[in-house]
Amino acid sequence: MKTLVIVSHPDIEDSGSQQYLLSARPDSEDVTFHPLEKTYPDGEIDVEREQSLLKEHDRIVFQFPFYWYSSPPMLKKWQDEVLTDVFAFGGAYSPPQLKGKEFFLVVIVGAKEEEYQSGGREGFSLSALTTPFQAMARKTGMTYNKPLFIHQFAYLSEQEKMRVLIQYQQLLTMGQTPTLAAREEWILEQLEKTNLSTLDDFGKVAVEHASEVIENNRLTLDELQLMLDELNG
Amino acid sequence: MKTLVIVSHPDIEDSGSQQYLLSARPDSEDVTFHPLEKTYPDGEIDVEREQSLLKEHDRIVFQFPFYWYSSPPMLKKWQDEVLTDVFAFGGAYSPPQLKGKEFFLVVIVGAKEEEYQSGGREGFSLSALTTPFQAMARKTGMTYNKPLFIHQFAYLSEQEKMRVLIQYQQLLTMGQTPTLAAREEWILEQLEKTNLSTLDDFGKVAVEHASEVIENNRLTLDELQLMLDELNG
Repeated sequence: MKTLVIVSHPDIEDSGSQQYLLSARPDSEDVTFHPLEKTYPDGEIDVEREQSLLKEHDRIVFQFPFYWYSSPPMLKKWQDEVLTDVFAFGGAYSPPQLKGKEFFLVVIVGAKEEEYQSGGREGFSLSALTTPFQAMARKTGMTYNKPLFIHQFAYLSEQEKMRVLIQYQQLLTMGQTPTLAAREEWILEQLEKTNLSTLDDFGKVAVEHASEVIENNRLTLDELQLMLDELNG
Repeated sequence: MKTLVIVSHPDIEDSGSQQYLLSARPDSEDVTFHPLEKTYPDGEIDVEREQSLLKEHDRIVFQFPFYWYSSPPMLKKWQDEVLTDVFAFGGAYSPPQLKGKEFFLVVIVGAKEEEYQSGGREGFSLSALTTPFQAMARKTGMTYNKPLFIHQFAYLSEQEKMRVLIQYQQLLTMGQTPTLAAREEWILEQLEKTNLSTLDDFGKVAVEHASEVIENNRLTLDELQLMLDELNG
């Protein structure tokens, strides 16, 4: 499964969070990073090229900072110009081109998670505020998956940032809510890549997650054993 | 009360609905039309000028076509650049600059009203889809008023278009849900301007509305008379 990460940020070089995510992008041929403002510095979008890119990928990610409760203008321009009626809904001689793909939001949010509710400083939930993207996914036949909201990135500890990175990498390579087996496989891959003798932070968190997975497996196995014992009475 | 109508449309000259609304704009010093794409053809926004314009007006209208469940990119760029933290929320030496103003959306919508609900082709209500604008109004201390959604403008009859125009003009000059007295005054002004001997469509609808108002007044007066009669038993 190939993932297209469409990144929109008016000044990506100066964004600590975007640079952090970029630096940690999976080293995989199946993940394409596509920063819009850098690709089109004059703002002129190559619509055919964008439509080809979309066709070549199965998982579409919109990654952007949450400005005034939405995306930066460049991503909106991209939507308005690239997602034409014929491309998105199909024409006389062509099917809808996004149907069946997986869609994800990865959004860097300035305020705390708890402020996005009635009575909070932002007053509305992130689910409510992102309704336009849900409607777009629905109308084009894409599956709208659980987004990754990264709150107050600059204030996260190194450990918390690492956890975000793991969620991010898992989303890009496995989609959301991967199965236990898929998570286990991912963790084992990370462990294999990690030089255990000189463990860095990433390695430490990976090991920690590996332990979690093993614990979960152990619980499941224990429960199965219990059921078998009862059946065998 | 002064009204600033911030219009965003990537090709306003070719838009029948926008041209219709423009042609019918109230001939009043209290209403300022401000088409963003025409004012800034190179996309470079004069932030100071925009902030001054906002300060000079009490009622702020965002007028745009509903593309992918939101505004065109130029209006988003305007939000991101003009509504700075210090301007919108206040700084050490300045108050928040939008607080107390009235905010309205005037949105040209391609699909029918009934499609904007669960089970409809668009799947979400217009109230849900416009949450980001409600959150902006709330955060900046503006009153979010009942929007004017104009559905499938091109398919409206001349009579229906006239009705839309009247709603539009009333919104720009009186705000939403004006009192009966305010509506009556507006109608009388329109009637005064109308050459009754050569009645055009606009005049006809104005006369029709005048009749409605008079009927409403008559009902109210009748009810008051009834109450008086009962009291006098």
